[in-house]
Amino acid sequence: MLKRQQGVRSNERTIVKDYRYPEQDMRFVLDELVGIERLAALPGQEELSAELVYAVLEEAGRFANEVLAPLNEAGDRHGATLADGEVTTAPGFREAYRQFADAGWVGMSVDSEVGGQGLPNVLGTAVSEIWQSANLAFSLNPLLSQGAIEALHHHASAELQQRYLLPLVSGQWTGTMNLTEPDAGSDLAAIKARAVPKDDHYLITGQKIFITWGEHDCTDNIVHLVLARLPDAPPGVKGISLFVVPKFLPDEADNYCIRNDLRAVALEHKLGIHGSPTCVMSYGDNGGAVGYLVGEPHQGIICMFTMMNHARQGVGLQGLGIAERAYQQAMAYAAERVQGVGADRKTRVSINQHADVQRMLLTMKAATEAMRALALTASAEVDFSRSGQLAAEHQARTSLLTPIVKGWITELAQEVTYLGVQVHGGMGFIEETGAAQHYRDARILTIYEGTTGIQALDLVGRKCQSDGGQALRALHLEMQEDVAVIRDRYPRLAAEADSFAAALQVAQQARDWVLNNSADNAAAVQAGSVAFMMLQGYVTGGWLLLKSAACALEAADAERLDTGFAEQKVQTACFFNQQLLPRVFGLWPSIEKGYASLAALAATQFPA
Amino acid sequence: MLKRQQGVRSNERTIVKDYRYPEQDMRFVLDELVGIERLAALPGQEELSAELVYAVLEEAGRFANEVLAPLNEAGDRHGATLADGEVTTAPGFREAYRQFADAGWVGMSVDSEVGGQGLPNVLGTAVSEIWQSANLAFSLNPLLSQGAIEALHHHASAELQQRYLLPLVSGQWTGTMNLTEPDAGSDLAAIKARAVPKDDHYLITGQKIFITWGEHDCTDNIVHLVLARLPDAPPGVKGISLFVVPKFLPDEADNYCIRNDLRAVALEHKLGIHGSPTCVMSYGDNGGAVGYLVGEPHQGIICMFTMMNHARQGVGLQGLGIAERAYQQAMAYAAERVQGVGADRKTRVSINQHADVQRMLLTMKAATEAMRALALTASAEVDFSRSGQLAAEHQARTSLLTPIVKGWITELAQEVTYLGVQVHGGMGFIEETGAAQHYRDARILTIYEGTTGIQALDLVGRKCQSDGGQALRALHLEMQEDVAVIRDRYPRLAAEADSFAAALQVAQQARDWVLNNSADNAAAVQAGSVAFMMLQGYVTGGWLLLKSAACALEAADAERLDTGFAEQKVQTACFFNQQLLPRVFGLWPSIEKGYASLAALAATQFPA
Repeated sequence: MLKRQQGVRSNERTIVKDYRYPEQDMRFVLDELVGIERLAALPGQEELSAELVYAVLEEAGRFANEVLAPLNEAGDRHGATLADGEVTTAPGFREAYRQFADAGWVGMSVDSEVGGQGLPNVLGTAVSEIWQSANLAFSLNPLLSQGAIEALHHHASAELQQRYLLPLVSGQWTGTMNLTEPDAGSDLAAIKARAVPKDDHYLITGQKIFITWGEHDCTDNIVHLVLARLPDAPPGVKGISLFVVPKFLPDEADNYCIRNDLRAVALEHKLGIHGSPTCVMSYGDNGGAVGYLVGEPHQGIICMFTMMNHARQGVGLQGLGIAERAYQQAMAYAAERVQGVGADRKTRVSINQHADVQRMLLTMKAATEAMRALALTASAEVDFSRSGQLAAEHQARTSLLTPIVKGWITELAQEVTYLGVQVHGGMGFIEETGAAQHYRDARILTIYEGTTGIQALDLVGRKCQSDGGQALRALHLEMQEDVAVIRDRYPRLAAEADSFAAALQVAQQARDWVLNNSADNAAAVQAGSVAFMMLQGYVTGGWLLLKSAACALEAADAERLDTGFAEQKVQTACFFNQQLLPRVFGLWPSIEKGYASLAALAATQFPA
Repeated sequence: MLKRQQGVRSNERTIVKDYRYPEQDMRFVLDELVGIERLAALPGQEELSAELVYAVLEEAGRFANEVLAPLNEAGDRHGATLADGEVTTAPGFREAYRQFADAGWVGMSVDSEVGGQGLPNVLGTAVSEIWQSANLAFSLNPLLSQGAIEALHHHASAELQQRYLLPLVSGQWTGTMNLTEPDAGSDLAAIKARAVPKDDHYLITGQKIFITWGEHDCTDNIVHLVLARLPDAPPGVKGISLFVVPKFLPDEADNYCIRNDLRAVALEHKLGIHGSPTCVMSYGDNGGAVGYLVGEPHQGIICMFTMMNHARQGVGLQGLGIAERAYQQAMAYAAERVQGVGADRKTRVSINQHADVQRMLLTMKAATEAMRALALTASAEVDFSRSGQLAAEHQARTSLLTPIVKGWITELAQEVTYLGVQVHGGMGFIEETGAAQHYRDARILTIYEGTTGIQALDLVGRKCQSDGGQALRALHLEMQEDVAVIRDRYPRLAAEADSFAAALQVAQQARDWVLNNSADNAAAVQAGSVAFMMLQGYVTGGWLLLKSAACALEAADAERLDTGFAEQKVQTACFFNQQLLPRVFGLWPSIEKGYASLAALAATQFPA
């Protein structure tokens, strides 16, 4: 067992790189905001209890602290290397993956009918936050497997499930998603990879780029899910099909030892997540890689949509994970670093006694707790959408929140990791300190799995205009009702409830503006969509923290919760409300009035 | 001669890494906003003319394009290496420095009485923007030399000036600033380095960290300016003295060949500016490095203050430089990268046709032009403060604007380089593309030469409370008068003038709040100081762009300016006004009402 306190010496200062899972806040969100008893009431969750949830979190926390977090720096420093088409991962990654898989973590939230443990999605999400905090590059691997599991589970034939799904769920193999090509990034309609039928399978040819964990040495086989076009495919997204293309095919004795015609031809040299091999994959250089159709022909995009909520919420969660890690490190550094004098103008103090450093640290804390409240409640919506009378409402809420989870959390995570560097001062710019790694690692999160711009278009388009604003209106109504109750019931929160209500009103105005302009003024809506998404994100975060404060007061009153922690939740809600939420007043004018100047300047700057 | 279009092939796409100096906007700011005839009216500037200014810019632009910009990537990739106390810089740097020095660029704005060319400070600033854009890591070297030149010029004896200032001005040697120690960063009072008198000199001992260009192979000698304490020194900042400590001392024949007792013992492994060697310097390991006192004993901090305006404005300028470079690269990429379809929903278009990409690119453009307007007008204040009846007012304006130039520009530069990566999508995360280097390089700018928090404290304290708000009130009054004139004279800008006036009112409220709370509520002022600085920065940027729009219309009317360019200045001002300026409405509530929750939460999170 490794020692719990991981530190290195640099410039005669100990840098704390330890990670501990946020036990108290995670339990609070699951207990009070989501409600473990609500989860236990779901079909198949009869055995769920607070004790079980706590035990799972504790074990994940231990594994993250002892195994994954200590490898984070090595992953960054060594990266992965490619030689003769084989990728070697950073020292320790292979062994850690084996332990991770053997402990059953990959399939913990997968249906038991396909070999998973069938625990609630929200618990899997909480555990995944722990992985992402400990080691973002490592944790992308199981995240990708889970995406592949979801696609195969919903769309693959029984035979394909038997062959490829079960070893993914057990973690024996890993999965990847092969969408992007050099000319097809955000625009999947441009995909050119081809699939030609032959006997019981297809022969796949083409190049895919940015394939996360596309090749590695952690498992014996890798299951690639590949988007490609059949010979008779219509153009555009309606002509794309999904194939499962394993690295190794079975021989007649069903040993997976026949190398398929696919290989990693290059690794990208990236800004961050160096521990995660990002591959250029080439399919069919020697005639065609053997693949099997998943779902119906030309329905590949629909299969991808199945896993999109999961994958996008997963990346949002990475934003939360890296924010928590950056926050922990900045807190530890600021407590230890002595610089300047205190209020007596004489005694030298640690920098966490300076008001501006406190502002930075508390911004990190409040933002991270808002992210967690959002990420976990949104992922619980997935659980609640699977059964019951309100399944459709929960499904609509899931869809609505997904672009906010992905877009808002990952953007806010940039600020948190930025502040993490800033708190360190000059040491933040020195790589050994580790703050810069979080900053670099975080940078991909607003890009992959749909850029922030793509999330924002999803929010204003498919999630808002498509249903006439129904889902967003329902969310705003719920906020309004909550705030009214809070104002009445908790005098301490009355002033905060009022200032939140002013921000909510802006969010409602913005919603109506988007709906009213969607037909005649679509370009203005698009131009303002990122600001709109951020605005809705801040209001949603503010609402959940205000609700957290109320829940905390109630739970403390009922002696279910430590009063000190409850007090802290109240203060954090107030801080978010006063320091971060007012940003909506800066965003709204740019949405409402920002397009005229943009259009005028764009006309001269970007001639078609 | 190198070819003008520098590009590398990656993933079958050309990545443009060329840099061209922003000729039109620079000329405009110097001609119309600063006024070359005003500069030519200054003592000693009688020969200055637009032609001369244009010729200097053109030559700098050519040198940057052909020599410095092509080395930017090599500097990042190779960095500098240390062996046996000697630093080897990245391939090409040494030769480029020789060309740079030989062309006389180091001393272009230095007084002719000490060997400089005596050109105005503002022209040196414009040229320095060009260097910083082309190669930030390289350009730190002459920036540091200029700081050393300023300190020696104002405080050193005639003999020291003869020995050490002249070779710095010519670029034959370079200079450094040695302030920081492991326990003395923002807090210089904690400096421990010692200086003991011996004969005509002092023996210096101690360790200094984060010494930019502290050791290198570009010149034969390096002139270190070192802060240290004399044996009888009082504690705190009032006991620090400044010494000049050359790497090589003269022998009896005045050949600088005797190695002084100082050396680089380590190079930092940094997030960015890899081409710039950041050294841990050790003085006096063998008895003491020979140094000479600059100015009076215990007055080192005052000597440092002399060069602080220059150095801090210089770092603000680096923010502008890197923003311009990131903007140019993003513009080139977005024009070339085809993805998605246009308004006809059929034709594939380059991504600069998408509204959200346009928003990002125009945000980069408007922010960069606001930075340039501020950086150049602020640096012209230095010229105007050197003589004339209004010298004191110009000096006060210089002091006031300096923390805004450093703090606001470098923070905004983070957003611009962030958007530069975002515009590139997945390619932005790949190092070969170059967008990530700008993002990494920029990250130091809010830290060194006083963090953003230090700038903000300087603004609310020394620049605002100390004079009872006089300088800031004068600035706001000037804005108010300008806006009134603009509203009357330019109907096209009337609506913009009104919306600017609303933002200005907030800036005035914030100013009065800071002044009213400085005595009884100092912690609240400190906690809100960064938001205050950002708020004043946005208003100052908005004012200067609105003024630019008015100047452009006037100049176009008088046929001094291309009408297309004037139109673009008007649109850019409107864009900034509508898209960036409203942020003040988000900042102000956090200043006015944000402290209560911060104090409450800090009390539980950061026990003293």
